Amino acid sequence: MNTFEQFEQHESGIRSYCRSFPVVFKQARGAELITREGKSYIDFLAGAGTLNYGHNHPVLKKALIDYLENDGLTHGLDMYSDAKERFLETFHRVILEPRGLGDHVIQFSGPTGANSVEAALKLARKVTGRSNIISFTNGFHGCTIGALAATGNQHHRGAAGVPLAEVSRMPYANYFGKDVNTIAMMDKLLSDPSSGVDKPAAVIVEVVQGEGGLNTASAEWMRKLEKLCRKHDMLLIVDDIQAGCGRTGSFFSFEEMGIKPDIITLSKSLSGFGLPFAIVLFRRELDQWEPGEHNGTFRGNNHAFVTATAALEHFWTNDEFAKSIQAKGKLIKERMQKIVRKHGPDSLYVKGRGMMIGINCPDGDIAAAICREAFERGLVIETSGNHSQVVKCLCPLIISEEQIAKAMDILDAAFAKVMTEQVDSQAS
Amino acid sequence: MNTFEQFEQHESGIRSYCRSFPVVFKQARGAELITREGKSYIDFLAGAGTLNYGHNHPVLKKALIDYLENDGLTHGLDMYSDAKERFLETFHRVILEPRGLGDHVIQFSGPTGANSVEAALKLARKVTGRSNIISFTNGFHGCTIGALAATGNQHHRGAAGVPLAEVSRMPYANYFGKDVNTIAMMDKLLSDPSSGVDKPAAVIVEVVQGEGGLNTASAEWMRKLEKLCRKHDMLLIVDDIQAGCGRTGSFFSFEEMGIKPDIITLSKSLSGFGLPFAIVLFRRELDQWEPGEHNGTFRGNNHAFVTATAALEHFWTNDEFAKSIQAKGKLIKERMQKIVRKHGPDSLYVKGRGMMIGINCPDGDIAAAICREAFERGLVIETSGNHSQVVKCLCPLIISEEQIAKAMDILDAAFAKVMTEQVDSQAS
Amino acid sequence: MNTFEQFEQHESGIRSYCRSFPVVFKQARGAELITREGKSYIDFLAGAGTLNYGHNHPVLKKALIDYLENDGLTHGLDMYSDAKERFLETFHRVILEPRGLGDHVIQFSGPTGANSVEAALKLARKVTGRSNIISFTNGFHGCTIGALAATGNQHHRGAAGVPLAEVSRMPYANYFGKDVNTIAMMDKLLSDPSSGVDKPAAVIVEVVQGEGGLNTASAEWMRKLEKLCRKHDMLLIVDDIQAGCGRTGSFFSFEEMGIKPDIITLSKSLSGFGLPFAIVLFRRELDQWEPGEHNGTFRGNNHAFVTATAALEHFWTNDEFAKSIQAKGKLIKERMQKIVRKHGPDSLYVKGRGMMIGINCPDGDIAAAICREAFERGLVIETSGNHSQVVKCLCPLIISEEQIAKAMDILDAAFAKVMTEQVDSQAS
Amino acid sequence: MNTFEQFEQHESGIRSYCRSFPVVFKQARGAELITREGKSYIDFLAGAGTLNYGHNHPVLKKALIDYLENDGLTHGLDMYSDAKERFLETFHRVILEPRGLGDHVIQFSGPTGANSVEAALKLARKVTGRSNIISFTNGFHGCTIGALAATGNQHHRGAAGVPLAEVSRMPYANYFGKDVNTIAMMDKLLSDPSSGVDKPAAVIVEVVQGEGGLNTASAEWMRKLEKLCRKHDMLLIVDDIQAGCGRTGSFFSFEEMGIKPDIITLSKSLSGFGLPFAIVLFRRELDQWEPGEHNGTFRGNNHAFVTATAALEHFWTNDEFAKSIQAKGKLIKERMQKIVRKHGPDSLYVKGRGMMIGINCPDGDIAAAICREAFERGLVIETSGNHSQVVKCLCPLIISEEQIAKAMDILDAAFAKVMTEQVDSQAS
Repeated sequence: MNTFEQFEQHESGIRSYCRSFPVVFKQARGAELITREGKSYIDFLAGAGTLNYGHNHPVLKKALIDYLENDGLTHGLDMYSDAKERFLETFHRVILEPRGLGDHVIQFSGPTGANSVEAALKLARKVTGRSNIISFTNGFHGCTIGALAATGNQHHRGAAGVPLAEVSRMPYANYFGKDVNTIAMMDKLLSDPSSGVDKPAAVIVEVVQGEGGLNTASAEWMRKLEKLCRKHDMLLIVDDIQAGCGRTGSFFSFEEMGIKPDIITLSKSLSGFGLPFAIVLFRRELDQWEPGEHNGTFRGNNHAFVTATAALEHFWTNDEFAKSIQAKGKLIKERMQKIVRKHGPDSLYVKGRGMMIGINCPDGDIAAAICREAFERGLVIETSGNHSQVVKCLCPLIISEEQIAKAMDILDAAFAKVMTEQVDSQAS
Repeated sequence: MNTFEQFEQHESGIRSYCRSFPVVFKQARGAELITREGKSYIDFLAGAGTLNYGHNHPVLKKALIDYLENDGLTHGLDMYSDAKERFLETFHRVILEPRGLGDHVIQFSGPTGANSVEAALKLARKVTGRSNIISFTNGFHGCTIGALAATGNQHHRGAAGVPLAEVSRMPYANYFGKDVNTIAMMDKLLSDPSSGVDKPAAVIVEVVQGEGGLNTASAEWMRKLEKLCRKHDMLLIVDDIQAGCGRTGSFFSFEEMGIKPDIITLSKSLSGFGLPFAIVLFRRELDQWEPGEHNGTFRGNNHAFVTATAALEHFWTNDEFAKSIQAKGKLIKERMQKIVRKHGPDSLYVKGRGMMIGINCPDGDIAAAICREAFERGLVIETSGNHSQVVKCLCPLIISEEQIAKAMDILDAAFAKVMTEQVDSQAS
Repeated sequence: MNTFEQFEQHESGIRSYCRSFPVVFKQARGAELITREGKSYIDFLAGAGTLNYGHNHPVLKKALIDYLENDGLTHGLDMYSDAKERFLETFHRVILEPRGLGDHVIQFSGPTGANSVEAALKLARKVTGRSNIISFTNGFHGCTIGALAATGNQHHRGAAGVPLAEVSRMPYANYFGKDVNTIAMMDKLLSDPSSGVDKPAAVIVEVVQGEGGLNTASAEWMRKLEKLCRKHDMLLIVDDIQAGCGRTGSFFSFEEMGIKPDIITLSKSLSGFGLPFAIVLFRRELDQWEPGEHNGTFRGNNHAFVTATAALEHFWTNDEFAKSIQAKGKLIKERMQKIVRKHGPDSLYVKGRGMMIGINCPDGDIAAAICREAFERGLVIETSGNHSQVVKCLCPLIISEEQIAKAMDILDAAFAKVMTEQVDSQAS
Repeated sequence: MNTFEQFEQHESGIRSYCRSFPVVFKQARGAELITREGKSYIDFLAGAGTLNYGHNHPVLKKALIDYLENDGLTHGLDMYSDAKERFLETFHRVILEPRGLGDHVIQFSGPTGANSVEAALKLARKVTGRSNIISFTNGFHGCTIGALAATGNQHHRGAAGVPLAEVSRMPYANYFGKDVNTIAMMDKLLSDPSSGVDKPAAVIVEVVQGEGGLNTASAEWMRKLEKLCRKHDMLLIVDDIQAGCGRTGSFFSFEEMGIKPDIITLSKSLSGFGLPFAIVLFRRELDQWEPGEHNGTFRGNNHAFVTATAALEHFWTNDEFAKSIQAKGKLIKERMQKIVRKHGPDSLYVKGRGMMIGINCPDGDIAAAICREAFERGLVIETSGNHSQVVKCLCPLIISEEQIAKAMDILDAAFAKVMTEQVDSQAS
C-alpha cells in the first residue's frame, strides 16, 4: 500500500498540484509547509497568492478561535451579522476611504474569485445594456463559464463544452513588443464602426497577470486604458484577485497609478487566512442590482469576515507592512537577477512587480525541471505563463529575510543543476 | 444613526435576506440564531439548507478548534493533505461504499454549489462530446453562467447579460398535473430526429426542488428518468446540493429509489458547519478530466474537510440519525397538516419530503406576510417556489421536539393572523 | 462514360434529390417534367412547393419574355423599379387588401425562404428587445444559422457547427396526441416565472408543416395560439413559405381561421415561375427597420416581380382558382383514402390539407420504396416527415384531373407492389 | 399623389438605395439605367458588383429567351438538369482547369452570397471539427446570422438580435498602417496557447474588401496568410463574391498571387445577368457533406445556369476580356488620380484594384454629397467604407471608353462642386 492510496483510489484524476509536490502536508506556519512526517518546506506558492499573511498567522488564528469559542455565527447567507458589520466598517475605513475609493460599495459574491468575476461581468452588462467584454491575451479570470469566456488559457477553455461568447480578446501591454502601442490599436478598433468589435460593456484587466506569466502593465498603460474606457464609454474592471491585498507592495495593485477602476474584484488573500472569500467593489452609481439577483449559499462566510477584519487591523492601519513588502520584493529581485546573470542564456530574465516576480526560462520543460529540483531541496514553487515557462515566486509577504535567503540559495542550486544539464545535453 | 448604517452605507443593494430579517445576528447555537442584543430566534431557514447539523455543533466545533490550535493546514489548493485524506477515506467508507457507490470518485470543485454544477456539466459534455443538457422547470442550480443556463428562475436568468445556451428545458414530475406523463413526453421528443431537441449530454435533476417550491419526484419517476437516460445514452446528474446530506431522511435524497446517478453534486451541508465546500461524485469511468482542467483557488478547504469528516463520523456511522430525521419530518408534517386544515382555503396544502417540507399558500404575498408574522414571533423562516408562495421549513435536522413544537405554534399563530386578515379583506 | 459523369465529377456530394430521380431533366410544362431523352414524368414534387402554377405557365412565360425583349431592368438592388411598383400595387390590391391585411407592409428580403425567416426573426427581436423565439417540433424554416435555430430537423441542425441559440422548442398541435392541449402547456410555461423559458419575442409557426410531415394545425389551435401571443405579448409569425400561395386552397394557409399574424414569410411559389423570390409582410407599426439594416444583393429580382404580378392577376382576382384547388384537393384525398383502405395496415393513413396531402407509411423505408416504384412508373414524388415516412403530394395546383387520375393509378400500383412485398417479407 | 406612393405606402422603410436615387428605373442596357420617363444614367453601381457584363447583355439575353421559349426547366431543386450539366462542364473547363483548380468541386448553395458563405463556414467547421473562424476588420460576408458573425459592419451586426458567436476578428492587411505586420500578429496569437483565441477552423478573407472601402491585400500578404493557414492547420476561404468574376482584371481576384484557397465563394456576377446565383468551390477532399445537409429551395436556378454558361463561353475562353478590364481599370485610375490632384486635400486619394477602385474622401458626408451631385448629372454611383467615405466605382466591365470618359467628367464636376463648397464653408 503506497502513501497516496486514498487519493489515487478516491479522488478524481483532475488533481494537479499534488503531482508536483508528492507529499502529504499536515501543518503550516508562516512561510512553512510541514508534511505528515514532519519535513518542512518553504512555501513559495502560498496558495497561488492566497496566503499573503502566511499560514495560521497567530493574530488571525486567535481571532478565529475566539470567535468559534464564543459560538459566533458561521454561516449567514446575506443576513446582517456582527462580523460582517465589522468587516464592512473596517474595510471602508482602512482600505477604501484612504485610497479615494470611499464611495465604492461592497458586494459579497460567492466565496471564489471566479464568482466575483461572474458578478462583475453581469453588473457591467446590466448597467450598460451591452454584452461584449474586452479581456486580454494571457488573462486569467476563473473557470466558471462566464469567467472562463474572459480567460485566455486554452487548457481551461477547451473544457468549456459550450460557446464562450461575448468577449473580444485584445493584446495586453507589450504583447506585440515594446514598440507596439496596444492602446492605440484598441482605440482604432473601437472607433471603427465596421471593425467587427461590438461596443463593449467593460474592459477586464489584471495589472499584473499572475497565471499569464507575470506580465505587467505600466502606470502609463493603465492610465491610457482608463482614458480609453472613458472615451468609449466602457467600464474599467480591475481583477485584483491575485495581484491585490498587498502582493505588489500596496493594497491594490493599481494604487500608485492614478486610476480609479469602476469595478474591482478581490479574493484569494482577502480573508487573510486562506478561507474562501470574495468581494466585488464598485462605484455607488453602478449599484443597480435588484435584491438577490446574483446569489449563492456561501456569500456570508463569517469566519472569513473575522480573519479579514483582523488582517486589515493588523497589517494595513499604517504603511509599515507596505514598505516591508517593497523592501523584500527588491531583495528577491536582486537575488533573482544574480541567478539570471550566473546561469543565464539570454532568454533567462526576471519578470513581475513587488513580491509577484519570477524568472522567465527558455521553455516550460526547463522551468518544470527547476521547480522539481527546488522541491527536492525543500522549496515549494511553481510555474506560470502561456508555456508554463516562468518560475514564479508567490511567497507569503510576511516571510523573513532568512527564509528568503534560504529559498534563493535553493533556487540558485536548482538553476545550476538544470541549466548545466541543458548545456550538456545540447553539447552532446 | 440607525442600527444598519454600515450595511446601508457600504454594502451593495443586492443584499436580500437581511431585508426579511432586519436584525444583526451575532451568535448561533444548534437551531437558534441570537442577535447582538441577545434575542433568540428559532432557525427554520438553516442557511437555506446549509446547517443540517445546526449552528456550531460542539463535536464539529471542537474538531475545528483542535485543528486550528495545532496549526493544521488551512488552504491547500489541490495538494495532498492529511485532512483531505481523512475526508476521502471517511466519505468513501461511511457514505459511498454502503450505498453501492463505492466506485464513484470525488472531485473537489470550487467550494460553492454553483461551481460543482459547472464542473458536472463540463464533465458530462466532455465525456459525451455533446453540448445540450436537459434541465427542468423550476430547477435551481446556481447563478454562474454555466449553472444559470440550467436554472429556471427568471429573476436570476434576467441578469445573465449573455446567452444562456445549450440547455433544453423539460417539464418536471407532475408539472402538467398528475395525469400527464412527462417522462413519456421527453421520450417522444428525444426519439424524434426532427423534434428540435438536440441529443443531450446529460439530464440534471433535483429529487426535491428546494428553490423551486418543494416539488418532489417520486421513486417511480426517478427510475423512469434513469431508464430514459440509459435509452438515449444521456448521463444522469442528480443535483443533491440542497436535498442531500440527510435532509430528506437519508444521506442522498435518491437513496431508496433504486437508482444510481452517473454524477452527483453536493455542497451546502456537506461541511457540516456552514463552511464553503462542494464536491462532484462520478463513476470512475467518467473520470476523463485532465489534471487541472477545471480549477479554483479554494478547492482544498481543509477546515471543511475537518468538520465534514467529524460530521460523517458523528452522524452517519449508524442509522439513528436517519431515523430521527424521518420521525421529526413526520412530526412537522402532522403539525403543518393541522395548520392547513385549521386555516385553509383549499389552496393551502403541505408539500415536500422528509424535513424539506412546507405549506403552499394562495400566493406569494400571503406567504411573505406569514413569514413576517412568524419572524415577529421569534421564527426565522422563508418562502420558495416560482411565485414565492411556499412557506418552507428547512430547520436543522438536530432540532429538538420542543423547538419544533414552539416553531409550529408560532407558525400556527402567523397563519391565523394572516388568513383571518385575508378573509376580512375579501369580505369588505 | 456514364450519363451523370459531369455531376459525379464536378458537383459536391451534397446533391440529394438527383439521387432519387436519376435522370437528366431538360424541359418542363405544366405538371410535367421531361428528360433529355424525351421521357415525361408527372411532377408531384413541384419544386418542393415552388411550382404551384406549374412549369413554364404560358401567361407568365409570355410576360417574362416580353420583359426581357424590352430590356426591362433585371437586377435592381432595392432601387425603385417599374416592375417592383407593379408588384407592390398588385399584391396589395389583389391579396392583402381583400384579406384584411391592407396595413401590412412588404419587405423584400434576400430571395430565399431562409432569408425571409432570418429577416422576420431579426425584426421580431428588434421590435420587442427580446431574443427568445418559440418554434415547434418538426418545424422547418431554413438552413442558414438564424433560421436553422428554429428548424427541428437534426440532419440539418447537426451541420450547424455553431450554437443554435435563443429558440425554445414547443410541441406542435397534437404532437402529444389529440388529448393533450399543447397551447395550455405553453401557457403554463410562459406564465411561470421560474419555468426556465425566457419571455419570447415571437412564435414562428407553419399552419401545415410541409417538411415535418404534413402535420396540420386546426383553426381552433391557431386561434388559441394567437390569443396566447396576445396574452404573453409575443409576436405571431406565420411561415407560409410552403403552405402559402394557394397550396391549401386559399392564398394564405390561415385565411379562414380568423387570425391576423403580425409577420408572414412568403417565398417558394411567390414568383409563380420557380424564380428565387421571398418577402416578409408585417404590420406597419412593426416597421422599425433602419434603411439597409438587413440587406442582400438579390433583394430586387425584377424577373420575379414580373412573373409574380402576372400570376396574381391571372389566378387571384377572383375565387375560381381557389375553388379548383379545393376540388382537386378533395379528389386527391379521396383517391388516397382508397389506396389506404386497399393496401393499408392501420398505420397507413392520409394526412394534410388542400393540395398539401400525403400518405403516412409504417416507416421511412417503405415510403422510400413506394416513391422509387412510383418514379419507375413515371411519377416524381418524394417523402417528408421526421422519419421520412410520409409520401407527400405537392403537385402543381394547375394539374388536370386526368393527370391526377394517372398519378393516382401509379401510386396505387406502387403501394400494391411495396405493401405486398412487405406482407411477404413478414410472412417469410 | 406623388410618384413614389406605392413604395412609400406598401414597402418597408428598410429600403435604402432608392433613397439615394429617387427615380423609377424601367429599362437597362449595357452600362445604362433608364427611368420610366426615359432618362438615362450611366451605372457606376452595377448592382453592387452584380452586373459585370452589363444589363441585358444581348448574348446572354438571347440564350435565356431561347431557353424560355423551348420550355427549359426553370426550377430544379438539386435534380440533374441539362442546363446544370452544361454549367458544370463549362465552369470546370473554362475557369477551374486552366487555373489549377481542376480538383475543386462545386456546391450549389442557396442563390445568395450570404448563403454560400453560410455553407462555406459550415463545411469548414464540419471538416475540422472546430468552431472558431477568423474574419477581418471591415470584412463583409452577408447578413444571415452565420454570415453576419463574420461581417464587421455594426449597422448590420446591431440588428442580429442574437449572439454572433465563434468568430475571432483580426486586423486586415495594413489595418494598423503599412509598418505593422498583421500576419505576424496573428501568428503570435495563434501560437500562444493562452492568447484566448481558440484554434480556428478557417480564415475567411476578401482579397479586395468591397463594402469595407476598397481595402486591398497584396499578393505577398495573401501568400503569407496562406502559409499561416497551413502552419496552424486552418482552411483558407476566399470570399470572392464581389471581387470575383473579372472585377479585378482576372476571373478570381487572387489568380496571380500564387495561392490556392481551400474554399471559394462566388455569387453576384456569376450568373452574368443579375440573376440570383451562388456557388461554393472546395478541394475534393473537403467534400464531406452528407446529401442534403445544407439545402434550400432555389439552389437549382436553371435560368442562372443558362446565362452563366453563356457568359463563360462569351467572355472567358480567351484572355481578351481580362486584358480589356485591366486597360479600363488603368484608364479609370488615371482619371481618378487627376481628379484627386485637382480637387485634393491630402485626405483625397485613389484606392482599390482593377475595376474595383474609388476615391477616399475626407468623410462620409462629403462622399455622399459627391454621389448626390453625380446623380444629378446622370451618374449612379455609391459610397462604401467604414465611414462611407469612399466614392466607389463598380461600373460594368463591358463599359465603353466613351462612357468612362463621360462618367469621369461628371465625377470631376461633382468633386469640383463639393470640394469648393467645403473650402467655402471652412473659410466662413
